[in-house]
Amino acid sequence: MPYVTVKMLEGRTDDQKRALVTKVTEAVSETTGAPKEAIHVMIEEMSKSNLGIAGVRKSDQ
Amino acid sequence: MPYVTVKMLEGRTDDQKRALVTKVTEAVSETTGAPKEAIHVMIEEMSKSNLGIAGVRKSDQ
Amino acid sequence: MPYVTVKMLEGRTDDQKRALVTKVTEAVSETTGAPKEAIHVMIEEMSKSNLGIAGVRKSDQ
Amino acid sequence: MPYVTVKMLEGRTDDQKRALVTKVTEAVSETTGAPKEAIHVMIEEMSKSNLGIAGVRKSDQ
Amino acid sequence: MPYVTVKMLEGRTDDQKRALVTKVTEAVSETTGAPKEAIHVMIEEMSKSNLGIAGVRKSDQ
Amino acid sequence: MPYVTVKMLEGRTDDQKRALVTKVTEAVSETTGAPKEAIHVMIEEMSKSNLGIAGVRKSDQ
Repeated sequence: MPYVTVKMLEGRTDDQKRALVTKVTEAVSETTGAPKEAIHVMIEEMSKSNLGIAGVRKSDQ
Repeated sequence: MPYVTVKMLEGRTDDQKRALVTKVTEAVSETTGAPKEAIHVMIEEMSKSNLGIAGVRKSDQ
Repeated sequence: MPYVTVKMLEGRTDDQKRALVTKVTEAVSETTGAPKEAIHVMIEEMSKSNLGIAGVRKSDQ
Repeated sequence: MPYVTVKMLEGRTDDQKRALVTKVTEAVSETTGAPKEAIHVMIEEMSKSNLGIAGVRKSDQ
Repeated sequence: MPYVTVKMLEGRTDDQKRALVTKVTEAVSETTGAPKEAIHVMIEEMSKSNLGIAGVRKSDQ
Repeated sequence: MPYVTVKMLEGRTDDQKRALVTKVTEAVSETTGAPKEAIHVMIEEMSKSNLGIAGVRKSDQ
């Protein structure tokens, strides 16, 4: 605790995902006071055919 | 905002998923008053081996 | 199955939420072929102090 | 209802996942009084590159 | 890891929720091999006006 | 997109939650390249009676 989930389109590099986990953990720790050891970050990647905004999927734009 | 997540078994066609996003967005906009531009729809697909009802997985039926 | 979650700001009336559940269920059934009996819709309401877009919370705008 | 989601690292066998669904359903039914027929269990599997604890991903340890 | 979320209607007693956490943790540990110390269980309670099955909310039945 | 959810125990101040949204948004933007305008952050707060680790709820410790 805290538990952080980041849902985003697939396509980021492994380096970007490593940095994402590190920087988000720091941001959560600094602002909530939770120790880093207690912070869990999960990345969930979506394909463009599974995300729609304003009724139109990213794969259909 | 609103953010809509639809979890379902994999196997729907691309046309079905496109229609799902369009129709759900319309339904949410009409009933909540939110503009379509603010409505986000995410589809999450599961395999039959990852869903169980009444203690039995879909893949074991 | 399918399982639909709608996250939105609190403040909708009970009639709006009733209509939301009915219309979203119809939209999902028509486009995926799932029978209505198998469609579950959950509404999750957020306060403006718990939602931020572009780094600014709705309660701070 | 109830709806149970289990997020865990990928790598469990099919037998482990079958047992997980069965045993979790029993545990929820016994303690909440919900009939088994109403209990839905979803398994979501993550790769080690998508889970970080204390700012470090499982794939980087 | 694993992370378990149980969404259910509000109204269970504190004793039922305590037992739910204990028994689900045991079920997940026994079947996945994860140590209990690594298992996190979150309960999310819904009102009857926020859950619909087959297009009808629990509060409207 | 991206959509970030932070689940944590209730009890943080409004200032902590404001800073959390701002800093997490910056961390996600810097590491993924997504513009801030596209980043959505949701905070979900739990009571101690609804979170258990190692089979024991926070309210029972």
